[in-house]
Amino acid sequence: MTQLSDLPLRANLVGKRPYGAPQDPVPISLNVNENTHPLPEDVVADIVASLAEAVRGVNRYPDRDFRELREALAGYLGRGLDDGLDADRLWAANGSNEVLQQVLQAFGGPGRSLLSFTPTYSMYPLLADGTDTRWVPIPRLDDYTLTPAHVADALREHRPDIAILCGPNNPTGTVLDTETILAAYDAFEGILVVDEAYFEFDGSRASAASLLPGRPRLLVSRTMSKAFAFAGVRLGYLAADPAVIDALRLVRLPYHLSALTQAAAIAAIRHADEMLATVTDIRAQRDRLSAGLRELGYEVHPSGANFLLVGGFESPTATFEALRAHGILIRDLGIPGHLRITAGTEAETGTLLEAVRALGPGGARA
Amino acid sequence: MTQLSDLPLRANLVGKRPYGAPQDPVPISLNVNENTHPLPEDVVADIVASLAEAVRGVNRYPDRDFRELREALAGYLGRGLDDGLDADRLWAANGSNEVLQQVLQAFGGPGRSLLSFTPTYSMYPLLADGTDTRWVPIPRLDDYTLTPAHVADALREHRPDIAILCGPNNPTGTVLDTETILAAYDAFEGILVVDEAYFEFDGSRASAASLLPGRPRLLVSRTMSKAFAFAGVRLGYLAADPAVIDALRLVRLPYHLSALTQAAAIAAIRHADEMLATVTDIRAQRDRLSAGLRELGYEVHPSGANFLLVGGFESPTATFEALRAHGILIRDLGIPGHLRITAGTEAETGTLLEAVRALGPGGARA
Repeated sequence: MTQLSDLPLRANLVGKRPYGAPQDPVPISLNVNENTHPLPEDVVADIVASLAEAVRGVNRYPDRDFRELREALAGYLGRGLDDGLDADRLWAANGSNEVLQQVLQAFGGPGRSLLSFTPTYSMYPLLADGTDTRWVPIPRLDDYTLTPAHVADALREHRPDIAILCGPNNPTGTVLDTETILAAYDAFEGILVVDEAYFEFDGSRASAASLLPGRPRLLVSRTMSKAFAFAGVRLGYLAADPAVIDALRLVRLPYHLSALTQAAAIAAIRHADEMLATVTDIRAQRDRLSAGLRELGYEVHPSGANFLLVGGFESPTATFEALRAHGILIRDLGIPGHLRITAGTEAETGTLLEAVRALGPGGARA
Repeated sequence: MTQLSDLPLRANLVGKRPYGAPQDPVPISLNVNENTHPLPEDVVADIVASLAEAVRGVNRYPDRDFRELREALAGYLGRGLDDGLDADRLWAANGSNEVLQQVLQAFGGPGRSLLSFTPTYSMYPLLADGTDTRWVPIPRLDDYTLTPAHVADALREHRPDIAILCGPNNPTGTVLDTETILAAYDAFEGILVVDEAYFEFDGSRASAASLLPGRPRLLVSRTMSKAFAFAGVRLGYLAADPAVIDALRLVRLPYHLSALTQAAAIAAIRHADEMLATVTDIRAQRDRLSAGLRELGYEVHPSGANFLLVGGFESPTATFEALRAHGILIRDLGIPGHLRITAGTEAETGTLLEAVRALGPGGARA
């Protein structure tokens, strides 16, 4: 049988393993920060009606510039902004991973670098690697926060071509202040991406999109996977100066967004208010989960996302396995003493809290 | 206003323009080799039913390994093969462009090269560029054919890391012989991709997939855009040694195929026989178009695809514009004296032939 090592694989891939959490069907999956609330029936019906119309035309290539979708996204993202947002400032791809890959293809690559503050989203170094961009990881402060000084110092020292600030940050949940974004932007000459994948679960601050006017090197990325419960549809998007959008057009594959993706996303955005009501419930479950785990003696890091990074486990691996045996999947990211838990429905949160309580103080032993 | 040149764009993109034919709504679009036959009603209904089921689960990430889709594709592609085809040998992505991009990410990249025989599919050099792979174009013989000797000589001389043979070849329609594929495989040590995007329109020879056993460096790419009338769904696929599939798993973005794409493609493959009936009609229209244009004095290159490369136009640009003014869009690819025309429905073919006839011998004058 042919082995991977028998093939002329490029050098930087040798010995690597594919990215991805285990996909393991269990009753309660709180491991990949999905929105565990099913879509409301009327939203499902509207999406299906839009898809039915789109299917009739799939013998043709889709709108390569997905104009209607960009207008819908601009309308949604522009809601909180004084001057709204023009569709010319919007872009989208199959998940925010593809959006970020395109950003790296346009502004990164051989001889260039990407800086971010760790621990953070584990796809950043993989996307850097996949585009031959050098990865520069800078540790966050001890409590996982970022300050304007910490961020500006790192950017002035390393002068990366691209920096990503993830806020709220995955996997720590840490929120991101406007002052830190502004300090970062002014500290270097490269592309600054603010990854707002979990933005809607914060609810306490303005989007970095409000900072776009006059800042052509600022890119704000979002996803419909979380707040819009659309992980299965794969729709990430980005707001930036129209010149940045022109740059992304140079590296995107033609017709990269299918007619089905465009139709489903446009339909879902029509129901933004209804979807955001789900977000309010998830926020309440997160806070309930946080209070419950603190009561059990765990260290819960402040979170503006739909998940919590929780410390105080004697053996994260043993607790992970014990919960899995009970049909509950959470995430062990290799941070000593810590596990990451997605905030689910009211029922899921109750079951999880009971299961953790039953393990006793400090969780399961190795 | 910020210009693209104000941004820190990477050097090899400066001055480039985005790829893509004009998207211009006209009554008759025969410019991008779409399948102009609409999907049969019962196929539409089945796809919509599958999508309706998938939408209920889109709050969750899709099956990252799209196992059911790979089994369906293996069943379809394996039909003509003595031993069938195992799902472990199948891969898919959002269009064959993404499949090929992943092949280049895995086996190309900085310091590596991609060779193909021109004129051929214009995305190959762009995909090479986007992955910092060196592009090596080798001219086809004068009649656009390839011979075992011509191909083997080029591969022995240039020893590329990857070679792509497009058969039937876009934009010439030229078919590809098994002997040429075998000569290519044996002439070098790199990855050999046979791009069979238009395979079903040939109908006269076996797929290169029949050559896979014992040839771990052979990759056969396909698309559902053409024969399956699925350009809007974006589903390209590939058959190769399981070790190649493992390599592609290292560079694919996690969850790159949406739950909607997977559901729609699986449903369409259930109707493969019905879709292939459409292909038979398109083949008949292509041959009718070919005979009609030859009768009008044009040089029509032999084609195994759903399009024709046609020579003998005094001014391809003037004819392109004259037909566009009549609501007919075809493709001017810059080959002197030539235009490329997609075979459409019976009515479209009739209208096109009448319009060309009305222009007089040699087409419109500049």
